[in-house]
Amino acid sequence: MLMKLKRNHTIPLYQQIIDEIKHLIDRGALKIDQPLPSSRKLAEILGVNRTTVNHAYEELQAQGFLSSRPGSYHKVQKRRKEVDYNPDRKSLISWKGSSTDRARQIHEMFLRYSPEHPPSVTTRKDTINISRLDLDPRLFPMTEFKRCTNSVLCLSGSASLLYGDHKGFFPLRELIAQRLRLHGIAATSEEILITNGAQQAIDLVCRIFIRQNTKVAIETPTYANVLPLLQFVGADIAAIPMTDEGMDLNRLDAVLSKEAVSFVYSIPNFQNPTGITTTHEHRERLLTICLKHKVPIVEDGFEEDMKYYGKVPLPIKSIDEGNIVIYLGTFSKVLFPGLRVGWVTADRDCISRMTALKRFSDLTSSPFNQMIMHEFIRNGYYDRQLKRLHRVFRKRMQLALAKMDEHFPEQTPWTKPAGGYTIWVTLPKRMDEVRLHDHMLRHGVVVSPGSYYFPNKKVSGHFRISISRLNETEISEGIARAGKALHQMVTGG
Amino acid sequence: MLMKLKRNHTIPLYQQIIDEIKHLIDRGALKIDQPLPSSRKLAEILGVNRTTVNHAYEELQAQGFLSSRPGSYHKVQKRRKEVDYNPDRKSLISWKGSSTDRARQIHEMFLRYSPEHPPSVTTRKDTINISRLDLDPRLFPMTEFKRCTNSVLCLSGSASLLYGDHKGFFPLRELIAQRLRLHGIAATSEEILITNGAQQAIDLVCRIFIRQNTKVAIETPTYANVLPLLQFVGADIAAIPMTDEGMDLNRLDAVLSKEAVSFVYSIPNFQNPTGITTTHEHRERLLTICLKHKVPIVEDGFEEDMKYYGKVPLPIKSIDEGNIVIYLGTFSKVLFPGLRVGWVTADRDCISRMTALKRFSDLTSSPFNQMIMHEFIRNGYYDRQLKRLHRVFRKRMQLALAKMDEHFPEQTPWTKPAGGYTIWVTLPKRMDEVRLHDHMLRHGVVVSPGSYYFPNKKVSGHFRISISRLNETEISEGIARAGKALHQMVTGG
Repeated sequence: MLMKLKRNHTIPLYQQIIDEIKHLIDRGALKIDQPLPSSRKLAEILGVNRTTVNHAYEELQAQGFLSSRPGSYHKVQKRRKEVDYNPDRKSLISWKGSSTDRARQIHEMFLRYSPEHPPSVTTRKDTINISRLDLDPRLFPMTEFKRCTNSVLCLSGSASLLYGDHKGFFPLRELIAQRLRLHGIAATSEEILITNGAQQAIDLVCRIFIRQNTKVAIETPTYANVLPLLQFVGADIAAIPMTDEGMDLNRLDAVLSKEAVSFVYSIPNFQNPTGITTTHEHRERLLTICLKHKVPIVEDGFEEDMKYYGKVPLPIKSIDEGNIVIYLGTFSKVLFPGLRVGWVTADRDCISRMTALKRFSDLTSSPFNQMIMHEFIRNGYYDRQLKRLHRVFRKRMQLALAKMDEHFPEQTPWTKPAGGYTIWVTLPKRMDEVRLHDHMLRHGVVVSPGSYYFPNKKVSGHFRISISRLNETEISEGIARAGKALHQMVTGG
Repeated sequence: MLMKLKRNHTIPLYQQIIDEIKHLIDRGALKIDQPLPSSRKLAEILGVNRTTVNHAYEELQAQGFLSSRPGSYHKVQKRRKEVDYNPDRKSLISWKGSSTDRARQIHEMFLRYSPEHPPSVTTRKDTINISRLDLDPRLFPMTEFKRCTNSVLCLSGSASLLYGDHKGFFPLRELIAQRLRLHGIAATSEEILITNGAQQAIDLVCRIFIRQNTKVAIETPTYANVLPLLQFVGADIAAIPMTDEGMDLNRLDAVLSKEAVSFVYSIPNFQNPTGITTTHEHRERLLTICLKHKVPIVEDGFEEDMKYYGKVPLPIKSIDEGNIVIYLGTFSKVLFPGLRVGWVTADRDCISRMTALKRFSDLTSSPFNQMIMHEFIRNGYYDRQLKRLHRVFRKRMQLALAKMDEHFPEQTPWTKPAGGYTIWVTLPKRMDEVRLHDHMLRHGVVVSPGSYYFPNKKVSGHFRISISRLNETEISEGIARAGKALHQMVTGG
């Protein structure tokens, strides 16, 4: 058997032996039923360790190239030739045709939001992206994270790597319940379901509570990633406009009086994308209206902990004595989004329905990640991180608003958020999302087109800024560039 | 201000201060607009660190109990009383009525499968559970896992904790593509989507490819967790009986000729629950039939790597030249299910549709967990683990089958799996699932009632054994006990 093995190659020796033997079989140099040398002999011939040859033989046997009986030689076995990858291979099924209409629509939404969309203008190397609403990783407390990961592995070991409780890791649910009390929400761990970020909670709510021939009432604009889900489950949208004070409640009341609505989706703090926060009175009235019509409220509290000016009212859920609010929370906006830990709290009956679907859609969220998060909070690192973020973002938000005062034309007003990360800018005229994007890109800055946040729009008179991922230098420069772009727009450039 | 703080208590000092001040406000001992002592002064009075008091003041401010202007004292602020938890609080909405019919059904399925169901007989302390299909955690290579976790944190740091690629961590997809070639499957990383275990992949397939007024063809019995999903998306089931050789292909052909079917779901290796493995010829014929009718096959390869007898044919996907097979894989049956890493490979168009829905249903799978898995495979630990498992389970399966020969009556035949973990036992007569469960429990053993694996059945003439979680002593004893229970059944006890 002639084989050329390459020492110190990235392909391990046993793999090279496998490849060579397959090659010999494919070429016909090794015939069906021909016995191979013993592993001892082949190891000698090749000058390799005998376990290397054994490893190769075992793999070849598992793949069906060789057969073997105990105490006997390995023999070449009859089998099909391995399929080579053919990049031009065409499917005999039209997957477009096989998928549902709604799957086609959600795919279009996906492509539209994908950053891979090639821009029509050349991107400057130093482009500043002030569109992304994810936290600056430079602010992740990595030392503490490592410490917690090690603790979990030392204390819980393999138990952290088993399938977990469908509802989520019990001690973490206990800690979340405790933290919710800080926000005036009284919930027990039984009323909490851990999800893969708040997004999965929204998906579960949509799948369970949107009934046929009902609408879902949403603020417009609203969180972009909720729109495709509503379309996917086939919900018609009752679009309730945002005013400077939050969702237009007269409009909501009128809609709920006329139409069957499965739930109202609202983001009362630092609303995404507008940054608007509602008052306590607004929250009370919203709750009263929904109670009157017996329509659940889905309250997205995704930035509840980012109240760094300390003047934001408590969540709607805190005054929800009729238990009609489904409250969504997440750690992803102040810590490690990559751990994918969010949660939902609501009435026990509601949570147990969501838990059922959660079980069948992905069994459990990762117990390992939940245990790390639990360890992190338990050690006080979470509170410390919050304090740090509040200090940092109080400064960054003040800076951003000051820089906008300095650089933005007066014809493009913007919101003044009481916390969180996003600012909503109004343009002098409505603009197609691609044109807006390209115009900004020419000035070396990426913003988030306002149309993303409205159902079925590609044109809008707004864009969103987010300061979550940028330091002070980047914020200053990014806003200065956006200001230039806006001035050019205003002067009709 | 009179406060009693408990030193060395589990409630941290700052939290005690918060609680005390809230209590004073609630009692009216502190009035609206009343200024509080400076943090320095209160720290002196209480004999605590000043930062502890500052921490408490900040929290109270964030929660709206105190107001403050820079340079000025903290004052008590007007606000609502914190809601106490009322366990008897009733929801003014009927969540049962608000959720869809299908949500109600899936909830019933959930309760039925939940182990919390109180058994009607007393459970023996030394009960042996031979029902669970999850891997024995004593076989987890924890040292290697810790090493990989540390490498990821050292090498990638905060990048491992960001939102990730919607398709999954690219280097892991590359490694999976490489491993799939070992099974004769030629796929590129672009044709792979990482999911939260294979279960999420099944959910995505159901949501995207089940069209209105079509059926889904499944083996009966089949994987229990797929049945509630099919019901949830409203798919009618075309039940194709399992024969000793696998799905009855004549029946399948007849069904596909008459009915509109969205896809055929099949588990060709060590089928769950029967343990039956199909031959290469069976796989070819299944593929030919589906090609003829242009119906996709969803091939669940959840135990592809557990071919420890080395005589199992390659996956259907390996001969899928028409690209009509959606292949599901997972690491959860040989490694750490708690990491929740599975994948799906299929035609690019198909994968890109699934990726779109994955994005909107939970954004991304945890990059941290994916990176650890990548590191684990890259270091050769995965291959080493496979070898070890093969050695261990070859022995355990042989032992299980020998013990069944010894203890089971001849009137209750069972399958002889070529790998994997499950064995399917046929009873002398059909039995209600609760009665069967209780009968076995009385003999100190838990088995998985066969009815779980058939659509809409609570009675069946089978049960499933799984040896994945038990060592040799437990297998011997568990099977001996089940044997006693069976003998009693046969003699009409």
